[in-house]
Amino acid sequence: MKDKMIIAGPCTFGTYEELFKIAKELKKRGITYLRAGTFKMRTSPDSFQGLREEGMEMLLKIKKELGMKIVPELTSIEQVKKYGEQIDIIQIGTRNMYNYELLKEVGKCKTPVLLKRAFSATYKEWLSAAEYIKREGNKNIILCERGIRTFETETRNTLDLQAIPYIHNNTDYKIVIDPSHASGHAYMVEPMAKASLAAGCDGLLLEVHTHPEQSLCDKDETIDMKTLDCILKELD
Amino acid sequence: MKDKMIIAGPCTFGTYEELFKIAKELKKRGITYLRAGTFKMRTSPDSFQGLREEGMEMLLKIKKELGMKIVPELTSIEQVKKYGEQIDIIQIGTRNMYNYELLKEVGKCKTPVLLKRAFSATYKEWLSAAEYIKREGNKNIILCERGIRTFETETRNTLDLQAIPYIHNNTDYKIVIDPSHASGHAYMVEPMAKASLAAGCDGLLLEVHTHPEQSLCDKDETIDMKTLDCILKELD
Amino acid sequence: MKDKMIIAGPCTFGTYEELFKIAKELKKRGITYLRAGTFKMRTSPDSFQGLREEGMEMLLKIKKELGMKIVPELTSIEQVKKYGEQIDIIQIGTRNMYNYELLKEVGKCKTPVLLKRAFSATYKEWLSAAEYIKREGNKNIILCERGIRTFETETRNTLDLQAIPYIHNNTDYKIVIDPSHASGHAYMVEPMAKASLAAGCDGLLLEVHTHPEQSLCDKDETIDMKTLDCILKELD
Amino acid sequence: MKDKMIIAGPCTFGTYEELFKIAKELKKRGITYLRAGTFKMRTSPDSFQGLREEGMEMLLKIKKELGMKIVPELTSIEQVKKYGEQIDIIQIGTRNMYNYELLKEVGKCKTPVLLKRAFSATYKEWLSAAEYIKREGNKNIILCERGIRTFETETRNTLDLQAIPYIHNNTDYKIVIDPSHASGHAYMVEPMAKASLAAGCDGLLLEVHTHPEQSLCDKDETIDMKTLDCILKELD
Repeated sequence: MKDKMIIAGPCTFGTYEELFKIAKELKKRGITYLRAGTFKMRTSPDSFQGLREEGMEMLLKIKKELGMKIVPELTSIEQVKKYGEQIDIIQIGTRNMYNYELLKEVGKCKTPVLLKRAFSATYKEWLSAAEYIKREGNKNIILCERGIRTFETETRNTLDLQAIPYIHNNTDYKIVIDPSHASGHAYMVEPMAKASLAAGCDGLLLEVHTHPEQSLCDKDETIDMKTLDCILKELD
Repeated sequence: MKDKMIIAGPCTFGTYEELFKIAKELKKRGITYLRAGTFKMRTSPDSFQGLREEGMEMLLKIKKELGMKIVPELTSIEQVKKYGEQIDIIQIGTRNMYNYELLKEVGKCKTPVLLKRAFSATYKEWLSAAEYIKREGNKNIILCERGIRTFETETRNTLDLQAIPYIHNNTDYKIVIDPSHASGHAYMVEPMAKASLAAGCDGLLLEVHTHPEQSLCDKDETIDMKTLDCILKELD
Repeated sequence: MKDKMIIAGPCTFGTYEELFKIAKELKKRGITYLRAGTFKMRTSPDSFQGLREEGMEMLLKIKKELGMKIVPELTSIEQVKKYGEQIDIIQIGTRNMYNYELLKEVGKCKTPVLLKRAFSATYKEWLSAAEYIKREGNKNIILCERGIRTFETETRNTLDLQAIPYIHNNTDYKIVIDPSHASGHAYMVEPMAKASLAAGCDGLLLEVHTHPEQSLCDKDETIDMKTLDCILKELD
Repeated sequence: MKDKMIIAGPCTFGTYEELFKIAKELKKRGITYLRAGTFKMRTSPDSFQGLREEGMEMLLKIKKELGMKIVPELTSIEQVKKYGEQIDIIQIGTRNMYNYELLKEVGKCKTPVLLKRAFSATYKEWLSAAEYIKREGNKNIILCERGIRTFETETRNTLDLQAIPYIHNNTDYKIVIDPSHASGHAYMVEPMAKASLAAGCDGLLLEVHTHPEQSLCDKDETIDMKTLDCILKELD
């Protein structure tokens, strides 16, 4: 896996068994970072909101059992205070990029932060958000491009790979690409992951499931282990 | 002022005297709702962040002294817990429309909530955000259109007045228009305020200062008392 | 009708009788400018493309019979050469705002030009397009705002009324508003027409039909004569 | 160069010598398709509009002398009638994607057409535009993604590489990527060209000049021969 940070896992999960099974498959492939949302930010209050505290305990258990690093999203100051130092990377989601009070709180942690770009944020706003974290002392920030809003309706968002040369040329940050949320289509994930690597990204954030069709969330964009293997081959 | 809710005041303030002077001028004109930000959400951490707790005490003092209703923005769960029941309307800013944890907290208050539309939110996402508040018990929600992002660079945002008939036709919510943040230009505020009223809005949110050029924030879009008088004349 | 230019009529038409009936109703209300597309620019080649040359002959006949001024869209240099001096106002549609070869051709006519803003054009690009016309000698240009593209999907486009103070403050052009194409909903046309007038527009472009449900195009946004009367009342 | 179509050359040119020198360098590298605009679509009428007819004669001369295939943009029906069958690929620029009268004219030619996506067109609108060409008989259409408009201001446009899997998965068209116009920055062209190839594009359209700083247009995004060599190495 050389020098690329590969973060993989399900969008969210409903049971410990589901998560464990996926995590084990990922570990087998040499992946060390596990993504799996438990505090979900869903547009509708009717959508599944994640297992929340209960799910976080499962994630911490997996971390211990499999020795994997966990990268869950935290969505409130209270959660950061409670879990911020126990997890390996704090993910700040696209809806919270402008939530400066939350950013200041993660800035007080020592844990690395994966800062996703907001739906329609400019590079400069994204870097300003990172600055809110940095000012509080936490300099370990990884930027994550996950697609921005455009008029295109056949895809969920438009993946902006120009962000890679921009960030590398103008800042010292690392940039990880999330092709899953960007397109919303599993068949686009592999070509976009390859494109991201060719453009020089520092890592990938991938929605992967042993049984994508059983995903509680984002099943249309979740890839299976076979597709993951195709992407990993690029890294040899 | 009849049946329209007019909320006016400075974007933010630096001293009690500044705020008091503006508030008195507004009260003289029959305006009962005072806007004035003290927890400011600024893109850059280098910009003035508001007087914060200290400013909130000034707002509460003005409320008492002049008998005005105050409409400050709250930006964290902690602030909602502390001030939520002391103020008259809780303003949720454009950057926090997707901050569902915060929305759920204001949903637990009895205080009315002014929910601003996010930079590039659709009507449906905006209504889903309102739903997060409502589900917790607080049904007193006023929607606020404040301009959305478009490619136009001569204005800060594009004011979407079609939101007025849409909201009235499809929901039971009231909708207030903020023409100040939308355009970013003082000269556009009066025609856009008149247009909003003609389209049937339920109120206006206006950035007003006795000396706009001395505003600590958004001075280019802040109108003076004379312009405010022209707008108020429409309401007679 | 005082000093406002009211241009009304169907999006397109299928027979002379249909058009004549509508035109007569409009004339009865004091409206002098008739809109009715015969060279239609439709996204899909499967959609009705207008009666084209045949329809233009009908428009010219109506002009003569009823003494109304006609404002059809022209879509090619050839059409401008053939009809440019026979019609009263040449409409340049949103899809042709960047078609500089066409703009240069209408610039050679003496006929006034109604220049619609492109789907996602900035004010400056719109003014540059006007400049292409002006340089060829035709200074009689009226700008028309007809909604711009945004992420909102409940409306066809977002009507940008800030264009009114912008154009008046920064140029000598007149600006006419088309609330019909902007929203795509008949129920929004009246409030948006009123808002446009309140903001100081110089005229309105309205899709009107005696029987909107029979419109060959854009029936959802076409208003009936009763709604038109409500809008015209604002002008008294 | 295997199976990828590489179209390279200056944005525009001012003299035959300038163009010849560049073309010769391209030919030396095995590139067979020469791009070089002579009918330029510029936002401002004050910008250089290309050498027009005179430039087209130069292009036809180069075609003959060097045996290269030329891919100039045509911007009017008249030009298509005059030059459509003499050139190798007709380029339809982003501003003319909605110019259906022009599309129908190129549909009558036998020459292949490179159809650029409009500034803010959706995939479906782009495919509908292609359909206008196809219906007239010309089935030889190559789609070209050149960046779409977004709120990002640090780049000219945002390159939408998801278009590659979308077009391949849903249509039979070939898709060529133009990373030069997309970013507006020479330093982004190489990583984006590599990303495009990794995502499976069928070709590249590149702005190249022997002396980018002397380009009459788009000098900031024009790459030199050395950068071109780095991109070509990917194709071995």
